[in-house]
Amino acid sequence: MVSFRFRSSFLVRTYLVLVSSLLFGATTFAAESPNRPNLVVFLIDDFGWQDTSVSFFAEQTPQNRHFRTPNMERLARQGVKFRQAYACCVCSPTRSSILTGYNAARHGITNWILHPDKETSAKTPHLAAPVNWRRGGIQPGEITLPGLLRERYGYRTIHVGKAHWGAHGTPGSEPMNLGFDVNIAGHAAGSPGHYHGEKNYGNKEKGGLTEPWGVPGLEKYHGTDVHLSDALTLEAIAAVEQSVAEQTPFFLYFAHYAVHTPIQSHPRFMSHYQGQNFPGTNIPIDPIEARYASLVEGIDASLGDVLQALDRLDVARNTIVVFLSDNGGLSRHARGTSANGGKANTHNIPLREGKGSAYEGGTRIPFLCSWAQPAPEEPQQAALPIAQAAVQDLPIIVEDLFPSLLHWASAGTANPPLPRDGRDITPLLTHHVDAQAVREFQQRPLVFHYPHHWNGGVEGGYQPHSSIRVGDAKAIYFYENRRWELYDLANDLSEQHDLAEQHPAQLQQLATQLQILLHDRNAQWPYDFVQHEDEPLRLP
Amino acid sequence: MVSFRFRSSFLVRTYLVLVSSLLFGATTFAAESPNRPNLVVFLIDDFGWQDTSVSFFAEQTPQNRHFRTPNMERLARQGVKFRQAYACCVCSPTRSSILTGYNAARHGITNWILHPDKETSAKTPHLAAPVNWRRGGIQPGEITLPGLLRERYGYRTIHVGKAHWGAHGTPGSEPMNLGFDVNIAGHAAGSPGHYHGEKNYGNKEKGGLTEPWGVPGLEKYHGTDVHLSDALTLEAIAAVEQSVAEQTPFFLYFAHYAVHTPIQSHPRFMSHYQGQNFPGTNIPIDPIEARYASLVEGIDASLGDVLQALDRLDVARNTIVVFLSDNGGLSRHARGTSANGGKANTHNIPLREGKGSAYEGGTRIPFLCSWAQPAPEEPQQAALPIAQAAVQDLPIIVEDLFPSLLHWASAGTANPPLPRDGRDITPLLTHHVDAQAVREFQQRPLVFHYPHHWNGGVEGGYQPHSSIRVGDAKAIYFYENRRWELYDLANDLSEQHDLAEQHPAQLQQLATQLQILLHDRNAQWPYDFVQHEDEPLRLP
Repeated sequence: MVSFRFRSSFLVRTYLVLVSSLLFGATTFAAESPNRPNLVVFLIDDFGWQDTSVSFFAEQTPQNRHFRTPNMERLARQGVKFRQAYACCVCSPTRSSILTGYNAARHGITNWILHPDKETSAKTPHLAAPVNWRRGGIQPGEITLPGLLRERYGYRTIHVGKAHWGAHGTPGSEPMNLGFDVNIAGHAAGSPGHYHGEKNYGNKEKGGLTEPWGVPGLEKYHGTDVHLSDALTLEAIAAVEQSVAEQTPFFLYFAHYAVHTPIQSHPRFMSHYQGQNFPGTNIPIDPIEARYASLVEGIDASLGDVLQALDRLDVARNTIVVFLSDNGGLSRHARGTSANGGKANTHNIPLREGKGSAYEGGTRIPFLCSWAQPAPEEPQQAALPIAQAAVQDLPIIVEDLFPSLLHWASAGTANPPLPRDGRDITPLLTHHVDAQAVREFQQRPLVFHYPHHWNGGVEGGYQPHSSIRVGDAKAIYFYENRRWELYDLANDLSEQHDLAEQHPAQLQQLATQLQILLHDRNAQWPYDFVQHEDEPLRLP
Repeated sequence: MVSFRFRSSFLVRTYLVLVSSLLFGATTFAAESPNRPNLVVFLIDDFGWQDTSVSFFAEQTPQNRHFRTPNMERLARQGVKFRQAYACCVCSPTRSSILTGYNAARHGITNWILHPDKETSAKTPHLAAPVNWRRGGIQPGEITLPGLLRERYGYRTIHVGKAHWGAHGTPGSEPMNLGFDVNIAGHAAGSPGHYHGEKNYGNKEKGGLTEPWGVPGLEKYHGTDVHLSDALTLEAIAAVEQSVAEQTPFFLYFAHYAVHTPIQSHPRFMSHYQGQNFPGTNIPIDPIEARYASLVEGIDASLGDVLQALDRLDVARNTIVVFLSDNGGLSRHARGTSANGGKANTHNIPLREGKGSAYEGGTRIPFLCSWAQPAPEEPQQAALPIAQAAVQDLPIIVEDLFPSLLHWASAGTANPPLPRDGRDITPLLTHHVDAQAVREFQQRPLVFHYPHHWNGGVEGGYQPHSSIRVGDAKAIYFYENRRWELYDLANDLSEQHDLAEQHPAQLQQLATQLQILLHDRNAQWPYDFVQHEDEPLRLP
């Protein structure tokens, strides 16, 4: 992989420089400038584990045949496919983990944000959200991934699309206050007002921003037929072109608003789904599901355009691309139910439930890490342990991006480690992972902390919970009914067999680890208290 | 009061030195050594708000007539009596707050300690104690009050009696590892093996320490009729004499084992109670209660002996004495029930319940702060706002001792503030408290955090709880049944009228403040989890 490639070539260069320094007394070593890789994080919103023609499960599913994502397939062919990658069960927590390297329990942005003083958890009679979870989101002054990439390593840091870090009206709502040099279309909202240029992406007909939902900064496409996903792609590529022209390494954080609600069509791709039958059946694809699939194909086309641009600009061989979603696929509502079996909460099958849930459908995400094939005229790179078309089953979690990207950016130079919850995934990017790394990643506890009601329901794991995965064992604690559940993901991926009563000792070990980690991270807890309707909660 | 006295005289001296420096170019200012006051913290164990002839309530109670504490009366006459002073509801948390200045929610030693890996909470079917509360207690390396007094201000720091900071077998069980120069009879245990010299204070008959309960270090009194309280007093006075002889300011932390269980007699005082009727009644004093009262009179005699020694050594006028208990009076068992009305849980009346409870009987403590009357030949001191026989109704809490003692020790020199939960109570030690200080202390939230079952019972507030007092309002949250209660202490000191339903808005405000403070202090929470009998909890 690239990190090894540049590290190796850097070592070779360093050796030569050192040798020549010794021979001729030169002091060029310190002046040596490493060839830093460009970094692309391609983040899709609410994009489920099965919403792609790339299979992340052991076998092809009907969903894999339904969706068309050829560019994800290309990425999987030229890189590593992580089949057990995790994010938080909703969006802002994941995005904050990417930005800070902290687990959600620690950074405290445990639910999606919008207004700094407004609760976004569903209302229920009992068990309110923690009173001071960080509704305001990330704010200037915090150490961020783009800030470090810029300040330590001289990257041009480009934000495109959905930001959703700082709440409306706060400085953190502007990505340029959080370490980005460029902000294209990002602000506080986590959903676009509209996907269609004809609708000005949700802004007023006669100009001006419609807060909080109107997508900002894309005025030149207003009134056109350019879909939001395409407008963002055009702007992202233009920003990359500028960086390449300036010979500056770039960090492109390209976070599509798609495929979040509102589920509106991407017209270029609707004919693939509208009026068609679901693959292998004579069931017509539900109209909402057809629009959803067109949105998915739209972001895949965007990915293709970006990869093509990297090729065209001749930087693909020095660019690492990470593709992921910010949480499990939306499954409970709004996507229609007839296309894939007629039931709600089936969109992520074989995973249980979807976005917002404690179960795997809520948190397991598609994750690809890739870089272009080295050209044949660069033979020294072929010997490097660069995995192509590799499948990785060791679990990773979204805060791992922070140390990983910093490692890749360091390009073999000093990379002072920062105390973060994430772990550098570089050792997993080969076909033959070191045995020590296997043990470490297998035994590492992954923590999920969602002390909120997502939809107010009483089933499906959408209630306040914390969970932990160690090895293949996963324990979930539901705060409302104080219930522990225990699953063996190796033999029960769909979490149908709660083993809590059969294996109390194992559950206790996991529960103990979870509590220690939550306390270490100063987690905030759901709380019962009297909600007085006349006097809404005021934070000091 | 003394802090003003020395500060004023210091300022006068400073002025003179500065003037002479300016006139003669001398540089004696830096060499000026302020006259630091000696500091005595006289801490009684499990000593209730009503276990004294000093009334801390608005009126004299039968209990006040039953107990004989003339030396406390003297202290109250020559100082300030705090009628709304608080500690934690059990001992180690309070002692750790004194040592560190932190609230129990922050220092994490939320229950009494004994062995580093043994849970001391009562066992109940549900809601186990936080898995990683600090069962090991305070350990070397933490910043402690005696350590600061010694290092910053050159105090000789003397520990006498019950330590109970570090668990058995840990370095923290030895007070000399926590900032004390001298340790007399302190170790891990919070209870003496026996109070009687004839029983070697709970140690083996033929010598050697009986762990964990045998009181260490008093071998010379073994086999004698010297009561433990008297042995400690003799040793404390000897240590003070040595400091005075060496002209070193001293911090005497004198923490009696009494009046903790086992409730054994102090024979010198038994005749005052044994076979006597309870005052104003023809009810014979219960035998256990008689022994208890003799223990109380024993510690009062000890206080008298210490005060007399300070007089004899001519240091009383430069010694601040603080008298307090470590939690509410033991009321639920072991003290007998016939003496004061025939019911359990009545010993702290008018306060509700006792040690271990969320109610006032669990946390409100006797608290006196005093210094000797200045001699008439020191007229400049008479003008200082030293309160004599003052009563202070502004609430204070035990972690306030840390910044207060540091302030007093600083003697007007620089006293860099440390970020601690406690607040310097110096402004409250006058008859006429500054209006700003009144507001600040009235509005300051006091937090209590006890995520443990004390006795496993289901009534009396002995279940896991957190509570907050602001002004006269007090809100309690019980984790087990998720119940909030609200009391108006000004009009309902006995907490008989739960106002939660009548005043939800006020409750919500308090609940909000409590949650914010608990999170700020990284509090640990009780948790349900499967207790697997065959596999006891193992901490990593």
